[in-house]
Amino acid sequence: MTEGTRPDTGPDTDRAPDQTPDHTPEAAAATQAAVIELLGVLAYGEITAFERLAEDAKMAPSVDDKAALAAMAVAEFQHFTLLREHLAGLGVDPAEAMAPFVKPLDAFHRHTAPSDWLEGLVKAYVGDGIAADFYREVAGHLAPDSRTLVEEVLADTGHADFVVETVRAAIAADPRVAGRLALWGRRLMGEALSQAQRVAAERDALSALLVGGLTVPGFDLAEIGRMFTRITEAHTARMAALGLAS
Amino acid sequence: MTEGTRPDTGPDTDRAPDQTPDHTPEAAAATQAAVIELLGVLAYGEITAFERLAEDAKMAPSVDDKAALAAMAVAEFQHFTLLREHLAGLGVDPAEAMAPFVKPLDAFHRHTAPSDWLEGLVKAYVGDGIAADFYREVAGHLAPDSRTLVEEVLADTGHADFVVETVRAAIAADPRVAGRLALWGRRLMGEALSQAQRVAAERDALSALLVGGLTVPGFDLAEIGRMFTRITEAHTARMAALGLAS
Repeated sequence: MTEGTRPDTGPDTDRAPDQTPDHTPEAAAATQAAVIELLGVLAYGEITAFERLAEDAKMAPSVDDKAALAAMAVAEFQHFTLLREHLAGLGVDPAEAMAPFVKPLDAFHRHTAPSDWLEGLVKAYVGDGIAADFYREVAGHLAPDSRTLVEEVLADTGHADFVVETVRAAIAADPRVAGRLALWGRRLMGEALSQAQRVAAERDALSALLVGGLTVPGFDLAEIGRMFTRITEAHTARMAALGLAS
Repeated sequence: MTEGTRPDTGPDTDRAPDQTPDHTPEAAAATQAAVIELLGVLAYGEITAFERLAEDAKMAPSVDDKAALAAMAVAEFQHFTLLREHLAGLGVDPAEAMAPFVKPLDAFHRHTAPSDWLEGLVKAYVGDGIAADFYREVAGHLAPDSRTLVEEVLADTGHADFVVETVRAAIAADPRVAGRLALWGRRLMGEALSQAQRVAAERDALSALLVGGLTVPGFDLAEIGRMFTRITEAHTARMAALGLAS
């Protein structure tokens, strides 16, 4: 990180404020800490997603359905191993990096255990979508090697396509299903936001990274709010794709 | 299958009896049926193994342990997809091929749900080992393309190595653990044999394939017994590797 000692060349008016790297050693250390927190929360998110999808696959009505959800679980595990290797490559103990996020992510899953196959599918689809949105939000704020990793994980989507078909078919067969699943989708999003806000409130460095770098002292609560709004809007579009009101 | 119409060229004394293919169309059809049954039981075995390992990973005391068992689960799922593709390539509906084995394999897992992390590890190790023995037993009796598949699955082992270390460490820390886990290993093997014998009794074509081709009318119960004996001996060796009496 030789850039940390580069003399200040004064304001660079060509750059937007959120793209101006702060070249003090403190800022470099804070960015590094934030990136590790980010990779930690993503890694723990992926391994718990693996675990829950594999669990929910047990409710599948057929072996084909079970295999489709299991394939999503396997993709999450492969993301987990990429993230874990990246953390280890940074000289960080992956388990330590994940530790701060065990409680909020476990709480999310505890509060959103699906009671049947369709609820499991909606959770898989919505969860996959929120995770992808989140990866997309942060990818731009990362150094090239971490950004490549996040984009790699992001590119590996499409596993959830079968969900749309299955949920729409279930609603066509019994329209009353739609009301129950719409409520379920709202509950999932509410829990996700409540846990995400808890993490944002507790992890200053991570939050600062998410809203556009660490150039601003502290971080921008309004920008975090806007990020959550964008993610909520994308969620609404996904619920509509499933044939559900959000 | 042009070989099915080849004229009988008389006894071939160079061949051992269990390597003499029976070139009647009936024998070819029976072999095909048996291979489909074999791939079906292996495929359903793999997807249930995935499911149970993922479930048992929830009991892991640390994220590293969880990831190690999850990696075993993912390997089983990848075997499942290979087997499913092979079945589809033979023009067979994979779900139909698996259907006869849903009951015995589900019963095996229902009767052997581990009550803690160590029991889960021993089950993973013992199950993985029995499955590998079984693959090894049948590989020699298959046509080249199916044999390549089975050998591919078989070569992808080594995921269970961490189990030996963990179980031995647990026994060193508390020697009383050994007695309980030894009993558990016996129960696992007993259940595995009882379900396998149930399958062997119900699926004549499959059993005939396992004991060395379909040249003999009916099949050789004594040879099935010897196969189970070999698998039991290998199990004893694995239990010893874990530091457990079998």
